[in-house]
Amino acid sequence: MTASEPGTVRPGGRTARVRDAVREATLAELSGRGYQGLTVEGVAARSGVHKTTVYRRWGSADGLIADALGIAAAEPWPIPDTGTLAGDLRALARLVVAGFADPVEGPIARAFVLAAAQSGDAARSLHAFFARRHEQSAVIVGRAVERGEVPADTDAAEAVRLAVAPLYYRLFITGEPVDEQAADRAAASAEAAARAGVLSAAPDS
Amino acid sequence: MTASEPGTVRPGGRTARVRDAVREATLAELSGRGYQGLTVEGVAARSGVHKTTVYRRWGSADGLIADALGIAAAEPWPIPDTGTLAGDLRALARLVVAGFADPVEGPIARAFVLAAAQSGDAARSLHAFFARRHEQSAVIVGRAVERGEVPADTDAAEAVRLAVAPLYYRLFITGEPVDEQAADRAAASAEAAARAGVLSAAPDS
Repeated sequence: MTASEPGTVRPGGRTARVRDAVREATLAELSGRGYQGLTVEGVAARSGVHKTTVYRRWGSADGLIADALGIAAAEPWPIPDTGTLAGDLRALARLVVAGFADPVEGPIARAFVLAAAQSGDAARSLHAFFARRHEQSAVIVGRAVERGEVPADTDAAEAVRLAVAPLYYRLFITGEPVDEQAADRAAASAEAAARAGVLSAAPDS
Repeated sequence: MTASEPGTVRPGGRTARVRDAVREATLAELSGRGYQGLTVEGVAARSGVHKTTVYRRWGSADGLIADALGIAAAEPWPIPDTGTLAGDLRALARLVVAGFADPVEGPIARAFVLAAAQSGDAARSLHAFFARRHEQSAVIVGRAVERGEVPADTDAAEAVRLAVAPLYYRLFITGEPVDEQAADRAAASAEAAARAGVLSAAPDS
């Protein structure tokens, strides 16, 4: 708040504004042009930050993507609380489908995955993003354990992986369509596996 | 056989040899250099086929990849027959893990997925490849239905997707390790879902 008052522009405030402008421009460029269309020049032009500043601080398009993933990871994920594990996993899976179907978010998410396949920095950021998502959604399984829906040693991250993996498989590997039906089926499968007790947390996982 | 007899070099024979040499060179280059290192020049040099011939027939590196995927799709997949659905799905999932761990096959498989993300031709070939794999492995579920292990209307392709999707999710999205434990768990989850009856073939799928 202080930083935005007239006459109180601190170095940290300015740096933060530059960073935010560049991150926002990166997301907008990714949404509009995809991974292959992202350039330092394009982000500099859109953000109004000088090109040499962008190069100095972010290094390259991959550096911009790695940093932008930081915003995505920090954004709170709306963890569902529907009262059943089946309902919660279904809501999570539908969030993934809706995200990829979104005309703004979808291209950004695709660009992140493509960038990770080609850049070590982007890969590390993407992996940290998913680790955080799995961690955040563990609460869903914790509540299911408390309700006695699934065994107490159920691996929460694994239940979440199963509820979304078939959607990513269709989107990035087989090119098959994803819709609410695919989401509901993936979620129901994950729930069935958890109930059947095949997702026990292994000592080494 | 006839084409290989001395003095019987037919046009089809020569064309086929050029095609085979180029396909083999494409796979070798992909294995050694990955998607980003694949060039028409490199394939021409390795195959001994003239560069202009490669350009004329395959057009680009993406054309080479799309064609090479044709070989992969035509190769028979060793469909397991262990006597149980759990055993068969486990064997399938372990095949995927072994393939990606293989020092020759692994980089090729990664290159195919990366190419598909960036080229329409490669994407169509990859999607056809997976459709064929899903189709081939439907027999596993057919046998399980006959044994009374799972409901008669179980969607065979969906059971196969579930047995391998968590592995592709780890490999290409979250960057988490894949090993036999991950394979066995994915397979057990798919089997549990099939047994629970949540993989009924929907009328529109």
